[in-house]
Amino acid sequence: MGIDKNFTSRYFEDYRLGMTIPHALGRTVMQGDVALYLAVTGSRFAVHCDRVYAQNLGYRDCPVDDILVFHLVFGRTVPDLSLNAVANLGYAGCRFCAPVYVGDTLYAESKVIGVKENSNGKTGTVYVSSRGWNQNGDTVLEYYRWLMMRKRDESSKPPEPVVPSLPDKVADGDFVIPDFLREKAADATDDVNVGSSARWDDYNVGDDIHHIDGQTIEEAEHQMATRLYQNNARVHFNQHVEKDSRFGRRIIYGGYIISLARALSANGLAHGLRMAAVHSGRHAAPTFAGDTVYAWSRVLDKQPIAGTEQLGTLRLRTLVAKDNGTMVFPAPEDKSSWPPHLVLDFDYSVLMPRRASHKKSDRKAQKG
Amino acid sequence: MGIDKNFTSRYFEDYRLGMTIPHALGRTVMQGDVALYLAVTGSRFAVHCDRVYAQNLGYRDCPVDDILVFHLVFGRTVPDLSLNAVANLGYAGCRFCAPVYVGDTLYAESKVIGVKENSNGKTGTVYVSSRGWNQNGDTVLEYYRWLMMRKRDESSKPPEPVVPSLPDKVADGDFVIPDFLREKAADATDDVNVGSSARWDDYNVGDDIHHIDGQTIEEAEHQMATRLYQNNARVHFNQHVEKDSRFGRRIIYGGYIISLARALSANGLAHGLRMAAVHSGRHAAPTFAGDTVYAWSRVLDKQPIAGTEQLGTLRLRTLVAKDNGTMVFPAPEDKSSWPPHLVLDFDYSVLMPRRASHKKSDRKAQKG
Amino acid sequence: MGIDKNFTSRYFEDYRLGMTIPHALGRTVMQGDVALYLAVTGSRFAVHCDRVYAQNLGYRDCPVDDILVFHLVFGRTVPDLSLNAVANLGYAGCRFCAPVYVGDTLYAESKVIGVKENSNGKTGTVYVSSRGWNQNGDTVLEYYRWLMMRKRDESSKPPEPVVPSLPDKVADGDFVIPDFLREKAADATDDVNVGSSARWDDYNVGDDIHHIDGQTIEEAEHQMATRLYQNNARVHFNQHVEKDSRFGRRIIYGGYIISLARALSANGLAHGLRMAAVHSGRHAAPTFAGDTVYAWSRVLDKQPIAGTEQLGTLRLRTLVAKDNGTMVFPAPEDKSSWPPHLVLDFDYSVLMPRRASHKKSDRKAQKG
Repeated sequence: MGIDKNFTSRYFEDYRLGMTIPHALGRTVMQGDVALYLAVTGSRFAVHCDRVYAQNLGYRDCPVDDILVFHLVFGRTVPDLSLNAVANLGYAGCRFCAPVYVGDTLYAESKVIGVKENSNGKTGTVYVSSRGWNQNGDTVLEYYRWLMMRKRDESSKPPEPVVPSLPDKVADGDFVIPDFLREKAADATDDVNVGSSARWDDYNVGDDIHHIDGQTIEEAEHQMATRLYQNNARVHFNQHVEKDSRFGRRIIYGGYIISLARALSANGLAHGLRMAAVHSGRHAAPTFAGDTVYAWSRVLDKQPIAGTEQLGTLRLRTLVAKDNGTMVFPAPEDKSSWPPHLVLDFDYSVLMPRRASHKKSDRKAQKG
Repeated sequence: MGIDKNFTSRYFEDYRLGMTIPHALGRTVMQGDVALYLAVTGSRFAVHCDRVYAQNLGYRDCPVDDILVFHLVFGRTVPDLSLNAVANLGYAGCRFCAPVYVGDTLYAESKVIGVKENSNGKTGTVYVSSRGWNQNGDTVLEYYRWLMMRKRDESSKPPEPVVPSLPDKVADGDFVIPDFLREKAADATDDVNVGSSARWDDYNVGDDIHHIDGQTIEEAEHQMATRLYQNNARVHFNQHVEKDSRFGRRIIYGGYIISLARALSANGLAHGLRMAAVHSGRHAAPTFAGDTVYAWSRVLDKQPIAGTEQLGTLRLRTLVAKDNGTMVFPAPEDKSSWPPHLVLDFDYSVLMPRRASHKKSDRKAQKG
Repeated sequence: MGIDKNFTSRYFEDYRLGMTIPHALGRTVMQGDVALYLAVTGSRFAVHCDRVYAQNLGYRDCPVDDILVFHLVFGRTVPDLSLNAVANLGYAGCRFCAPVYVGDTLYAESKVIGVKENSNGKTGTVYVSSRGWNQNGDTVLEYYRWLMMRKRDESSKPPEPVVPSLPDKVADGDFVIPDFLREKAADATDDVNVGSSARWDDYNVGDDIHHIDGQTIEEAEHQMATRLYQNNARVHFNQHVEKDSRFGRRIIYGGYIISLARALSANGLAHGLRMAAVHSGRHAAPTFAGDTVYAWSRVLDKQPIAGTEQLGTLRLRTLVAKDNGTMVFPAPEDKSSWPPHLVLDFDYSVLMPRRASHKKSDRKAQKG
């Protein structure tokens, strides 16, 4: 015997610099995943719900929502990375690569790129680089993440500390932009009504967009979504244990808040195509069933894409607050200025079609 | 700039007689939609859950439940019609046209056919004709609806009042009845056990049918269903705002009650095929999570279909009550006689197979 | 007329020895069923979520989870068997036969194999043999079940009592084991990471496995799952009636607990393939929304399969407790020793791959 039959629970000492952790369990994406994701988020992006729109753009079917892809890949990593985590400290350098379609099967692995014991001798920070790929071996997602892990034995010798240098931002040149979008993102969506006429051209750096709608979170919705991703972190599902925890209740999976932020953002960013990258993401506070979340975005940057006039990128800072429908954007790095109702600070880039060229001529003609 | 990035919120003044409103966002129907719809309603109609039964009838697959088609089309219209609605006053003249299958993509538009400011100067009634169609341009659904809308500016000049004449009932001759049902609805379902032997032949005008089972509504079920349709009316999802509203809580989407009524009606109308038309529908009172709904139907009329002995139509008045399992049918138009627990009054026609001809001979033979 | 339009409610007197009850309503399995099942259980068995893994084993697609197949077949039987049941007393002799795939349509019938009136003259026990099959007529599932039913008329004459002899255990020789599993269950899964390296070889009779994770049940999750199976037993859905019942609330469908037990067991039995048989199952106590369930398994037996070294069987006794994360295995038959938090006692056999032959050589080589 001697073989542990339960999933391996890893402690800080178990993560050694340079080790690769292959995560268990491939996951085939189903039409039911897509429908359930819609049901728990209310997402309204045409590319994910209108096959005709997606195919006109050049996709062979509706691509799976980028955040759903993230959750499915992240779910693979949970038994290896999260079961003994004290806190999920942050994300960086997340790139969305090959589009994912219903029928694809996803796999994941993580590499340990940094370890540093905390001064209290009880915990340490582990830095990983995680990657998801499909049945053909094409990378669909990659990101950095760092977590605070419990030590198994407080007297164990700390490892040589290594803190990797993580990117503040994924470089625009590293965005994966399908050729078909470069060729026709504007032309293919020119006549399509998605609820707002605003294209890339209409956003300006510094614009603040209130996404208006609030969503109240129910325990059942959150549990169903999180189980769908096969994320089995215990704090989300076990009230019998959590009633005696610091919060006295189950904690909502942080990724669920990212999903709601992205879904709510359709009211203000309706023409958004795929996410190109998440530059950083931080959960400022936990959320619980019964909380109502709201979202705001600020346009941090807008950039054309070399060699095409069909689409451009918007870099957005999206904030989520709970139980507060009005918020002032705090300074990003001054945590002391963060309002108490802030739960997520999310910095990402999205691809958005530009106004089709003949329309630009029209506008010029009108002005002229 | 000057382009509003949020979904357009329309007020009474924004609806002008004769204008056409194209609704945003196509929606491809998925197998997951069908399963989730089953999960939130418990529907038991063979045509929607047994592919063999559906194909024997002549459908190429299980057709999507008519009420789910209604919700998906209705969902398209919500940002344009419901965000500033004070009340959803009623439906009429609803016809179900081309069958919808998984894989179809649905679109919708509405035409303003009447406007009338209310005497209080604060609101007005808007009458629309809405239509849904599929990726081939075939109409799948059309209906009239009228709503009470807020005025943007109480001092704005009222429009010339136009109140359209809406049909009391969709004429039987306007029902869309697929040829294959005319040819074999009775023969194809003759041997099939759907839980009751009652066919069209067994129902009589004036019959009252108690559908018996009650369903208690949960917030999570309702929210997931309503988001699935991409209905984003705020009263359904935001407890943070609704806690301060007249009711102090989120309101269940009225269409969810229609779904439950239809699903419950399988216990009493098990051989029902498609709905042909909704002649009128009125929400008598709001429902909330925790309410238990019951349904009753009265047969208002039964008619053969010219040129076929395979199926006939039943016109039904279905009532839904909450937290009351016994009810007396009130007079339809005398609202003062409506019992306080009544939440829906629904007048529709359903197609139902007749007893197969050789069985009729058997019965005659037995009698003779 | 004289034809009852509602589903038939059967009482003890209506079950006559030898009668066959054809259950209503075929049910086509959808991708959405599979996703929803995942969402309400959190199941982590590779064969049900990774198409590549399933196809490498020889399945043509991921087979539908055995317990989901059970629920779908069981759901067919509910209107005929459960509506007037006082208690679901037990299961035995359950065999899983042909694999079920998305797209299959399932049907069911039951045969009455025993009846015995209880001494109180108010109820009686009915024994049935139930069978489910697919659109090709292949049996997918068969099992025995016995229920306590109400009498319609307490003064009716009791039937001749017949208590069938039910098997304590499905014989190993009666397990349905697809040829492709016999040929390559070990080889095809040899390199696959499912979260534990433990194969059939690593389990010993008498091993106790704590499945660790607890799941708190939500009303909405349970209702959605149970409606998905079209199980319409009233105690699960109607709080308006149940508030006045013995428990004052809706009862969770016992099968939901079986689902959670099976899903939780992946943490300890990760390489499990299909269930071969359920030898017996007993619900020791009802569960309610808000309860948190835990599961443990004891290895009762392990057997090789004649003619193959690719896989073997494990016979397991799985217990489920609510709101108690530590439990001692009680004696199976001494009910007085059952702890009060025990809710399910489940005795079944599962197929599990053996260690691939070249790996065994490696181990020998290492030892040697």
